[in-house]
Amino acid sequence: MLRIIKVGGAVVEDDVRLEALLKRVAALADPMVLVHGGGRTATDIAAALGLPTQMINGRRVTSKEMLRVVTMVYGGLVNKSVVARLQAIGVNAVGLTGADMNLIVAHRRPPTPVDYGYVGDIDKVDGEALLRLVSNGVTPVIAPLSHDGCGSLLNVNADTIASAVATAVASQHEQVVLTYCFERPGVLANPDDDSSVIPLITPSNYPRLLSSGIVSGGMQPKIENAFKALHGGVHQVLITSEADPLCHRGTTVSLRQP
Amino acid sequence: MLRIIKVGGAVVEDDVRLEALLKRVAALADPMVLVHGGGRTATDIAAALGLPTQMINGRRVTSKEMLRVVTMVYGGLVNKSVVARLQAIGVNAVGLTGADMNLIVAHRRPPTPVDYGYVGDIDKVDGEALLRLVSNGVTPVIAPLSHDGCGSLLNVNADTIASAVATAVASQHEQVVLTYCFERPGVLANPDDDSSVIPLITPSNYPRLLSSGIVSGGMQPKIENAFKALHGGVHQVLITSEADPLCHRGTTVSLRQP
Repeated sequence: MLRIIKVGGAVVEDDVRLEALLKRVAALADPMVLVHGGGRTATDIAAALGLPTQMINGRRVTSKEMLRVVTMVYGGLVNKSVVARLQAIGVNAVGLTGADMNLIVAHRRPPTPVDYGYVGDIDKVDGEALLRLVSNGVTPVIAPLSHDGCGSLLNVNADTIASAVATAVASQHEQVVLTYCFERPGVLANPDDDSSVIPLITPSNYPRLLSSGIVSGGMQPKIENAFKALHGGVHQVLITSEADPLCHRGTTVSLRQP
Repeated sequence: MLRIIKVGGAVVEDDVRLEALLKRVAALADPMVLVHGGGRTATDIAAALGLPTQMINGRRVTSKEMLRVVTMVYGGLVNKSVVARLQAIGVNAVGLTGADMNLIVAHRRPPTPVDYGYVGDIDKVDGEALLRLVSNGVTPVIAPLSHDGCGSLLNVNADTIASAVATAVASQHEQVVLTYCFERPGVLANPDDDSSVIPLITPSNYPRLLSSGIVSGGMQPKIENAFKALHGGVHQVLITSEADPLCHRGTTVSLRQP
C-alpha cells in the first residue's frame, strides 16, 4: 500500500498537532507521500508585509507579490519545517514543489470568469519520479505549488495536488490510499457535533448531502477531488482527523456501496 | 567532470544576471550542482517584517524569527525561483536544503565567543545521495540551510556549503571543479579595477595577499574554503564572474604552482 496523505492547514500550522500527526504517520509501515497546505501562515506573512489577502470561492487570488509570499511560505517555511521534523523522527523526507524534478506541470488558469492571477490548473504529474523516490526509501513532502514550464511557479490548491498525485501514482502502484487529514474527525452531518461523522459517502448519497447543505464550502471540492481520484484508479479515499490517520472513525469516500 | 557552482547573492538576486548565468551553465555539457545565497533578499524581507538584521564578522545573527525568514527566502523564494527558471531552459533541477534527504547535517555553533543563534557548523554531507541525483540526470540546487537532525534547520554560509558539498562528492567522483560565481571578474589586486584579477592564488602567495589586505572581508573565508576543498580532493577551484563561469579571465585557486 502507498499512502498519499494531505495534511490540512490548521494541522500543519499547529506545532503540537503537526508533531503528533507526523509521529503517527511515521509509525505506519506503509510508504507515503505527504502533501501540505499553509494558507493561514501565507495570509499572516502577507499581512505583515502589507499585502491583503483576497479569497474568491475559497481560492486565493495570487498576484505577483502574493506568489512570492506563497513560494516563501509553502515552498520554504512550511515545507522545510515539516521535512526537518520528519528527519528528526527517522523519516527520510524530501520537500518538493511541482517545479522540482518537473513533478507537477500546470497552466495558468484563464482570467475569465475570475482572474485568480498566478493560479495553476494541473496538466501532468510525474508519478514515476515520485515512485522512484519512494522506492529509494525517501518520503516526498509536496508543497501546493506547480510550475508552468516557462519559468513561473503557480499556486495550486493542496487538496487538488493530493488528488492529482494519488491518481498519477495509482496507474503504477496497485493500492494507493488517499487520506485527507484535517482538524475535524470526518465529514460531519452537523458541523457543531464531532460525533456526527458520515461514515461513507458514495455517488448515491452525495447529491443529497450536497443539496441539503451538509457538504458545502471547502468540503465540496475535497469530495469532488476524492471522486476524481477514485475514478482515476485510487483504491480508497479517507477524510479524517489528524489524530486518526488510519480513519477508524472518519469518512470513507467510495464509488461503491458497502 | 562534475561542477559545483556557487552563485553569489548579487547574481541570484538580479533577474537579468541570474538568467544569463543559468543559460551559460545550462549550455555546459558537464553535470553540476548549484549552491546559492540570497542574503540581500533575506535582509529586505526581514526589514519589511520589522526584523532588523545583525551581522557579525560578515555572518548573520540568526534568531528564531530570522531563521523563519531565511527558511522562507533561501529554501522557498530564491531556491524555487532558480529551479523554475532552470526547468524552463531544459535543466531538470531539484531544490534542496540540508534537511532534504538528510543531505547536510550540522550542529549549532557554540554561543561563545559570539552567539550567532541558529547557525550551523557542518558535520556531514551525503555526497552519495547528491551523486545519485546527478546520475539520474537531476541537477541539485542547494539553499544555504542545514539541519541538526533534531527538527531544527540551521543557517550556514553558502560558500561553506559549496566547499563542503564539493569535498563530499570529490571522494567519489574523479574530477570535481568548484566554481564561485559572483559579481566581480575574480579576486582583484585593486578592488576599483576589474582588470586587476589575480590569476592564481596558491599557499605560497596567499599569506602575502592576506597581510597586504588585498584579500579581506568576505573573500578571506571564500579562499580558505577553496583551500579546504582542494585539500579534500577537489580538483580545481575557480573564483570568477557570472558572465565567465568557465573562468577564462578569473582566479584559479590551487595547491600547486603552475
